[in-house]
Amino acid sequence: MATLPNPIPEKTIERLSEYRRTLLSCKKQGITHIYSHILAGMHGITAVQVRRDLMLIGFSSDTKKGYDVEVLIDYISSILDSEEPMNIAVLGMGHLGQAITRYFNGRRLKLKITAAFDIDPAKVGTVIDGIPCYHMQSFEQMVEELNLSMVVLSLPTTVAPQLVVPIINAGIKGVLNFTSTPLNFPQGIVVENYDITTLLEKVAYFVKEADLNA
Amino acid sequence: MATLPNPIPEKTIERLSEYRRTLLSCKKQGITHIYSHILAGMHGITAVQVRRDLMLIGFSSDTKKGYDVEVLIDYISSILDSEEPMNIAVLGMGHLGQAITRYFNGRRLKLKITAAFDIDPAKVGTVIDGIPCYHMQSFEQMVEELNLSMVVLSLPTTVAPQLVVPIINAGIKGVLNFTSTPLNFPQGIVVENYDITTLLEKVAYFVKEADLNA
Repeated sequence: MATLPNPIPEKTIERLSEYRRTLLSCKKQGITHIYSHILAGMHGITAVQVRRDLMLIGFSSDTKKGYDVEVLIDYISSILDSEEPMNIAVLGMGHLGQAITRYFNGRRLKLKITAAFDIDPAKVGTVIDGIPCYHMQSFEQMVEELNLSMVVLSLPTTVAPQLVVPIINAGIKGVLNFTSTPLNFPQGIVVENYDITTLLEKVAYFVKEADLNA
Repeated sequence: MATLPNPIPEKTIERLSEYRRTLLSCKKQGITHIYSHILAGMHGITAVQVRRDLMLIGFSSDTKKGYDVEVLIDYISSILDSEEPMNIAVLGMGHLGQAITRYFNGRRLKLKITAAFDIDPAKVGTVIDGIPCYHMQSFEQMVEELNLSMVVLSLPTTVAPQLVVPIINAGIKGVLNFTSTPLNFPQGIVVENYDITTLLEKVAYFVKEADLNA
């Protein structure tokens, strides 16, 4: 695994994840090599950006035929993935929770949604898309038993703040929060607050600006 | 409305959307004024960042009691919102599409999900959470009839590339793409590719890094 002198910017991490996904799909189609400008074009960015991102992680084996797809997948994986698989729990198995579970599972060997939590009696005790659903009351206990290290919050916004303390107490290390209440955690817990409303408002803003400048 | 000399960075637009959401919730609770460091704390960022963002949009009426909540909401709205409401269509009414529709509607007067499209006969012709669901075949026609300007793509990843041409032809101006295939559109169409997998991988990466540095 590469050792990196400086922290990698968040945006580069996001793009590395995206490059890997594209490369995996290239590999599936039997493509063995890809030029930086082709990879860039598939992501709507410049080749300079792609090369800069890969330079940041110390990758430089550009050949005459472009990057070796498999080598680059492995290299990006050595940066992004941890050695041990990480187990993820989804808190809130409504539409969003089920969408995430169904979409995500089976795609990443190193990241796995292994448990769900809810308070709906119709869901607790059942298996949804292959994932056992537990009652929120048993959250802390199950985190330990199942060795869960990350949670996805896909429950009603009003409930989210009540979960901060149980999440801390349970020893969770990473939180992906899809509710519209931004949550703060003490240092040592990584949190990404992601409200879908923000994404819609952002697109709407740039549509408006493009219209004004047209 | 404020006139702005320079384009506002994407990240600032995202934060403005988040500030507004927090301010709206403050207003609901009867809070009339808020200090920049309190607003910052609620978003896990510094007061300097908040003040810089507001300076970028030309807002500077910080009083001794902090920002006037209502005045700031109105000011941010004058930046983010267009004068006319924008109509949004959701393409793909599976779990994710339904989660987005249910979550979003009724929240934003200026942005409204007014139509859904699918190919599932069990959904086409029905009304889901108040939103009529049409067949994808009638997409271009309905975009015109219903004056739709944005689409959310929440359909299977494999189908997404087939929609690029219909979206262009229909005259759609903004695309929020949740599938894992990044899509490119010609200039004049705003696209935000947002794969949930990327968010999970990003959180996992920073959890791993925090562990290594602990």
